[in-house]
Amino acid sequence: MIDLYTWPTPNGRKISIALEEFALDYQVHAIDIGGGQQFEESFLAISPNNKIPAIVDNDTGRHLMESGAILLYLAEKCDAFLGEDKWQTMEWLMLQVGGVGPMLGQVHHFVKYNAGKAPYAEQRFFQEAQRLYGVLDKRLQDREYLSGSYSIADMATWPWISRYEWQNMDLKIYPNLMRWYRKIAARGAVQRGYDCPHFMNPIPIP
Amino acid sequence: MIDLYTWPTPNGRKISIALEEFALDYQVHAIDIGGGQQFEESFLAISPNNKIPAIVDNDTGRHLMESGAILLYLAEKCDAFLGEDKWQTMEWLMLQVGGVGPMLGQVHHFVKYNAGKAPYAEQRFFQEAQRLYGVLDKRLQDREYLSGSYSIADMATWPWISRYEWQNMDLKIYPNLMRWYRKIAARGAVQRGYDCPHFMNPIPIP
Repeated sequence: MIDLYTWPTPNGRKISIALEEFALDYQVHAIDIGGGQQFEESFLAISPNNKIPAIVDNDTGRHLMESGAILLYLAEKCDAFLGEDKWQTMEWLMLQVGGVGPMLGQVHHFVKYNAGKAPYAEQRFFQEAQRLYGVLDKRLQDREYLSGSYSIADMATWPWISRYEWQNMDLKIYPNLMRWYRKIAARGAVQRGYDCPHFMNPIPIP
Repeated sequence: MIDLYTWPTPNGRKISIALEEFALDYQVHAIDIGGGQQFEESFLAISPNNKIPAIVDNDTGRHLMESGAILLYLAEKCDAFLGEDKWQTMEWLMLQVGGVGPMLGQVHHFVKYNAGKAPYAEQRFFQEAQRLYGVLDKRLQDREYLSGSYSIADMATWPWISRYEWQNMDLKIYPNLMRWYRKIAARGAVQRGYDCPHFMNPIPIP
């Protein structure tokens, strides 16, 4: 049994989707990051960076923060979804952790939630989003998934692309990325994991 | 023999420092990112996200982009510097890849290089830098290194903290982080790896 501490954000959804894909037993604990629950001492004890998601694996007693670390932990625990080549999977997982996530997160902040406060930053991050969508689209030109077969690199990246509307991105301009996005959106595990904690969040479909 | 494609930035230095720490044979290829060499087709073939660093491991023929993936690859290749607990090392490595690096990178962009263009963004990223320095300082309160013993998590984080002056950060406010910073700065491998490609870059010491 795994305890999942989460909230319906792209980083949170990576792990609820993964837990569904790996078919692991888990129970969900909602951490209301709008209400400041991520700063409570009990949560900081397992996530000292005050971010969701975090897990406790009751099989081993281990607690773990950082969605990228959790994905790799689950993949090695279950020996699954590491892609056709582990190191290619690691490259694209790390590109998500270090690029796709932080940069699209800034688009959400500046373009969606704080439009007009810093036009220079809005333009910077929107252009970076376009560049990253282009890199992903090119990668998917001649392969079905980021690392050949469906892997934790896809599970990490897909929830960020599912916010394409927030990012003012038109997936039609990126046909390979759109094909990949729609294909993953059709997976049962993704649909179950997307709506976690259960707030009836529907997946947007372009 | 490993080919390292790099430039003297925090992400580049992670790998030149790691190659020195792991005592691996390598040759350096400077990729002048100010001159646009990261967009040349030959480089994009090994680093499709057009970022340094990247490596080619001539023992296996493998090429690899993303500094976090490269660090983990080298640590598993050499079975070294994975810290006292691999998963704690992964947590703090991922926090660097997803938080410390991208956010301090924005401080460099907005505060150092483009001051005045977006005061709201300058404040946002400077405050995030202060928060992250605080998280690292607290982590180091009761341990010498981020994951107990010196590991790839430290090699990933240290080059970003070595730009504390660019970030307008006063390390005296973070005494545990300063102790850690100075201890790592004294390592011979770090001093050799810092100055790569060889431009006579001295390590700043607070």
